[in-house]
Amino acid sequence: MIYLDNAATTQCLDGVVDVMNNYLKHDYFNASSVYAPAVKVRRDVENARNELLDMVFASNHKLLFVSCATEANNTIFESATLRSGDKIIVSAGEHPSVFECAKQFQNNGVEVCVVDLLPSGEIDEEDFARKMDRRVKLVSVMMVSNETGAVNNIKRICKIAKKVNPRVLVATDGVQAFGKIDVCVDDLGVDFFVMSAHKIHGPKGIGALVYRKDIHISPLLWGGGQENGLRSGTENVAGIMGFFEAAKLSMKNQKSNFEKVQKIRDEFIDEFQNSGVKFSVNGNGSPFILSLSFDGIRGEVLLHALEEHEILVSTGSACSSKHSDNRILSAMGKSQAEVLGNVRISFNAHDAYDVKNIVKIFASTIEKLKG
Amino acid sequence: MIYLDNAATTQCLDGVVDVMNNYLKHDYFNASSVYAPAVKVRRDVENARNELLDMVFASNHKLLFVSCATEANNTIFESATLRSGDKIIVSAGEHPSVFECAKQFQNNGVEVCVVDLLPSGEIDEEDFARKMDRRVKLVSVMMVSNETGAVNNIKRICKIAKKVNPRVLVATDGVQAFGKIDVCVDDLGVDFFVMSAHKIHGPKGIGALVYRKDIHISPLLWGGGQENGLRSGTENVAGIMGFFEAAKLSMKNQKSNFEKVQKIRDEFIDEFQNSGVKFSVNGNGSPFILSLSFDGIRGEVLLHALEEHEILVSTGSACSSKHSDNRILSAMGKSQAEVLGNVRISFNAHDAYDVKNIVKIFASTIEKLKG
Repeated sequence: MIYLDNAATTQCLDGVVDVMNNYLKHDYFNASSVYAPAVKVRRDVENARNELLDMVFASNHKLLFVSCATEANNTIFESATLRSGDKIIVSAGEHPSVFECAKQFQNNGVEVCVVDLLPSGEIDEEDFARKMDRRVKLVSVMMVSNETGAVNNIKRICKIAKKVNPRVLVATDGVQAFGKIDVCVDDLGVDFFVMSAHKIHGPKGIGALVYRKDIHISPLLWGGGQENGLRSGTENVAGIMGFFEAAKLSMKNQKSNFEKVQKIRDEFIDEFQNSGVKFSVNGNGSPFILSLSFDGIRGEVLLHALEEHEILVSTGSACSSKHSDNRILSAMGKSQAEVLGNVRISFNAHDAYDVKNIVKIFASTIEKLKG
Repeated sequence: MIYLDNAATTQCLDGVVDVMNNYLKHDYFNASSVYAPAVKVRRDVENARNELLDMVFASNHKLLFVSCATEANNTIFESATLRSGDKIIVSAGEHPSVFECAKQFQNNGVEVCVVDLLPSGEIDEEDFARKMDRRVKLVSVMMVSNETGAVNNIKRICKIAKKVNPRVLVATDGVQAFGKIDVCVDDLGVDFFVMSAHKIHGPKGIGALVYRKDIHISPLLWGGGQENGLRSGTENVAGIMGFFEAAKLSMKNQKSNFEKVQKIRDEFIDEFQNSGVKFSVNGNGSPFILSLSFDGIRGEVLLHALEEHEILVSTGSACSSKHSDNRILSAMGKSQAEVLGNVRISFNAHDAYDVKNIVKIFASTIEKLKG
């Protein structure tokens, strides 16, 4: 099987599973209990928290463990204490966990401005600057697009926003960035940074919200007062420690992983060019994602045809896999044919890819489908 | 080590860990992706959902996978669409994930009535009947107390409630019930039933909300539309399948487990009686929990002294472990001395307990502390 859908989710690394198994079977104690073996677990969790903050160079921030990036993004919106008449800005490229949140608040009278995307998939900073005003309470722009890999200049966006309204909260969804490209939260200047474990070979069911120390977090869940009262519910220790292990492994090899994947992505494009298949590349940035549109073919048809050869790709994100449109490619100004012909190929740094052969199968499959 | 804090959390069974490892390492696909291996994962999740519903005999209900019982309880409150002036009833014995939720709504103008507990730890049904009126929109009473093991007659409570207001929503937190005592949601007549994996030798970070089919669930998390749009966030497949495995193992041996633990609890009480130690039992119901108050000794001091002998107990729930008071024992009318002298011992059906020896250590430790 050739798994080319790593932007949807990744396989847990053996080292991650080993760590999780320890916390499931041996150090299984409730991190809020007071006896020594539980206090040891608590220390492990706190160490993971601090080290994760260090990994993203967030010296003015704290970190909240949550069940997923979706929960992190929802917590940001909740914490922005938005009221009817307030204004927020999100980009047209945002993940549904930001986009749908914004819609909910829009239904409750909050003005939602959506910033255009450039054909490259990045946000249109001029459009952003035009839309940014002193009424804006929250800006949410993702760091790396999960659809195209396009990388936004969050530092510059943050500067534009804070210059207009120093009190605006700026959030960036870093799910496709963390562990893959350099992240320095201090340098970005953002108030919120969102991470997920299962995109970096960690488990599903765990994510983190990095937030500036002086921000008041409004809890989504009330209860036993875990996570300093900000996120109740028994701590998912195996999830947290598996996340931490995955992060350590990603950070340790980030540079070499990046270079390796960059080479793979370039090779894919070269091979496609050599193959004679008509295609275009949507967006350009993180090498972990390669969004292509094939001429005269439907992405979902190609997807299922490739399945026969045990090649797994996607047509955009798993979240949007049931829709035939693609909100983000449309926002980039892609034609209907390009949107319909879209296939997302996403890599990891651990698998070996026989690129020549894979592209050959793509090409012959496309030829057959067109035939 | 003698682990006597199974009401706080439990060790994952090997069979559970094996299942989880499969979904972390092999069937790791995103359950929302459309290719065959992901569709297989989706089928596994849907099968787990249906079987879990069957296990609690909930033929008029659906099941939502959530990150923990706390999230389930919070979702219930959110779904009750409470407005200022509405009235809700919770028992004084509720878990913080219900009690603190109620407080939040109270802060927003909802009238919260707290039903008294009897000295047995059960709710005072007469007090409940008095407080129940046609304005009440939500009733939440737990099935088994996590502090004392006291078992409430949910069926009767539900009947009282629905007789007064047929449209009232009745919820029961079944976290300490499911997999341990018989649960038949159809028979109970409740609208909501809450379960958790990590109390039955499954993983932390996964729980379920069973809800009546015709109830409108108000999502806490917005995003990719997973769980039929009711709980966004990539499905925690390993967690779900580990939960399901733990549930299967619990249900398979529920009767014999119950009898085994009942014998252990009785033996503990007998041995304590023989030991000459002065103590009283708080509440009586589920044999999995034995709440004791020792005369003239502080529970937390005893807890730490027992740690030296590698015996792990708690002073009430892990959530409340940082408080010196105990809201629930106080509500049962226990004296300050009884509250301070409280230790909760909670069993599982898998460990072998050398009860004679454990109680001997308790007795000598108490004697030494009193010395």
